[in-house]
Amino acid sequence: MSYKVGIMGATGAVGREIIEVLHDRNFPVEKLRLFASVRSAGKVMETPFGEITIENADEADYSEMDIAFFAISGGWSQENAEKATSAGCYVIDNSSAFRYDDNVPLVVPEINANAIGDSKLIANPNCTTAIAAIPLYTLHKEYGVKKVIISTYQATSGAGAAGMSELTEETRNYLEGKEVGNKVFAYPIAFNAIPHIDSFQENDYTREEMKVVWETRKIFSEPDMSISCTCVRIPTMRVHAESIVIETEKPVNPADAKKLLSSVEGVELKDDIANNVYPMPITATKKYDVEVGRIRQNLVFGDHGLEFFVCGDQILKGAALNAVQIAEKL
Amino acid sequence: MSYKVGIMGATGAVGREIIEVLHDRNFPVEKLRLFASVRSAGKVMETPFGEITIENADEADYSEMDIAFFAISGGWSQENAEKATSAGCYVIDNSSAFRYDDNVPLVVPEINANAIGDSKLIANPNCTTAIAAIPLYTLHKEYGVKKVIISTYQATSGAGAAGMSELTEETRNYLEGKEVGNKVFAYPIAFNAIPHIDSFQENDYTREEMKVVWETRKIFSEPDMSISCTCVRIPTMRVHAESIVIETEKPVNPADAKKLLSSVEGVELKDDIANNVYPMPITATKKYDVEVGRIRQNLVFGDHGLEFFVCGDQILKGAALNAVQIAEKL
Repeated sequence: MSYKVGIMGATGAVGREIIEVLHDRNFPVEKLRLFASVRSAGKVMETPFGEITIENADEADYSEMDIAFFAISGGWSQENAEKATSAGCYVIDNSSAFRYDDNVPLVVPEINANAIGDSKLIANPNCTTAIAAIPLYTLHKEYGVKKVIISTYQATSGAGAAGMSELTEETRNYLEGKEVGNKVFAYPIAFNAIPHIDSFQENDYTREEMKVVWETRKIFSEPDMSISCTCVRIPTMRVHAESIVIETEKPVNPADAKKLLSSVEGVELKDDIANNVYPMPITATKKYDVEVGRIRQNLVFGDHGLEFFVCGDQILKGAALNAVQIAEKL
Repeated sequence: MSYKVGIMGATGAVGREIIEVLHDRNFPVEKLRLFASVRSAGKVMETPFGEITIENADEADYSEMDIAFFAISGGWSQENAEKATSAGCYVIDNSSAFRYDDNVPLVVPEINANAIGDSKLIANPNCTTAIAAIPLYTLHKEYGVKKVIISTYQATSGAGAAGMSELTEETRNYLEGKEVGNKVFAYPIAFNAIPHIDSFQENDYTREEMKVVWETRKIFSEPDMSISCTCVRIPTMRVHAESIVIETEKPVNPADAKKLLSSVEGVELKDDIANNVYPMPITATKKYDVEVGRIRQNLVFGDHGLEFFVCGDQILKGAALNAVQIAEKL
């Protein structure tokens, strides 16, 4: 069996990557259609599936599609999801529009594919959540995770292709002694770190930080799990890194945790410090697996605590790959 | 009264900055002498104190100096400190050679100037420790800090002028499509994040991470304080940022903590999220004060927990400024 697939937002960083991942994973595509804003409609895009003419996303007829990947914006998803699902089309939504809706499953397939049930609309988690989720859940199942404290090192790709271009251009300006500016980010990102991603909430956390709290709880079905997060944008291209400390119910030791994580699908254990092997953005780039390393006994929580470092491609496991993995489960 | 001052390692990033700070703070310098390796001896250096000819550090006569700043290396300090102090010269050592020696005071003047006593040798803390110390100690005195969990975002200046040059050159190579290499850092630092600073220890933490634990305990006179740290090098120039979570003995609320920190010497409160005001490397660069912001109630430790973000100039409060502040207390 094969499927008629539509990509809404095919010209964006995530949309483009979904096309690559569908091809790379031999997803059974009967026909691929690409949609974007009216501005891009009519243009022809080179893809591994051949040349495809881009159509206007606002005018899509979902009765002609089995699965649609939504990767335009939260507002656009909100306006168009019902139209698609009521026409019988599955929607895998990359935005945050439906993630916190109790009636919409939020899915990392390795963890909670069963949550999909008979829902036609499935939400794809935020990149920061998705990258930490598999190692965290693996440890949670075995040791019971009570507390999670995360600090992130997030790439400019989180703000799309425009974010990456801004980093490149403004870094060049800096090196040439020209004025360094910013449009996509709140401040110049070249040689800087900005502790501000998405909007500030009433509790003074950013929405990006709270997404990790809300989404991890929902994916793990642990509505009371104790989690905090500080999200920081740094001048890297497309991999988010996360420094994670956990306290566990049961005692845990790093050797057992490494053994456990070494056999988990979706994780590449990179933990051989004697040979300088640990996760890094430049090695995790364009990799499906999330790199996990620097696993050690946390000094604060003692034998009930671990500390580790995770790097995952924000566009892949953080977006396009997870979306295609959801499609594979339908 | 004024002093005969020597700077050992005057051509390095920290040595150069000590000269600037001495001048900027009107330190009572009777005569300034500059020392470096035999390679630099004889060269003339432009300084705010006039042109000074560099002398060979290995042949310094310490009986001619009142205070010597050591900023060459740990090994060099180990070999030369006794010679200096026994000649009656105060030594302020920027290396880690004596920091963990029970007989040598380790000093952040705003916190434990009294620890100097009649010691002729005083150790200057590691940059990562010094930058977090003042806000942490301020909160500790008021609320009693039980647990500290830190993740750092450290600048290339931590590896000296060579580290900053490598970032600049390799970033340029990257942007020009050339091969990106590394000499100073374990891996290419351009558009990367490296969770590895200094050597790995038996407990799988790096020495840089353990320095924060050992030194904070010593400076605070709290030998059992529960602290853990993950140190990460990122592609910034000269400011270290730190994401810090604390659990306190007494209940704490962010409004009170902000009020408290706003009046502390050495801290600039930058916490007005409604106007996008928070600490960042580009704003903390070349600033004496450490920027503190993003102060909020930590979600894991609840009303006994805070989470905040700190940025401090690694070469100033993290090295040269703190060293000169120690000299001011002698």
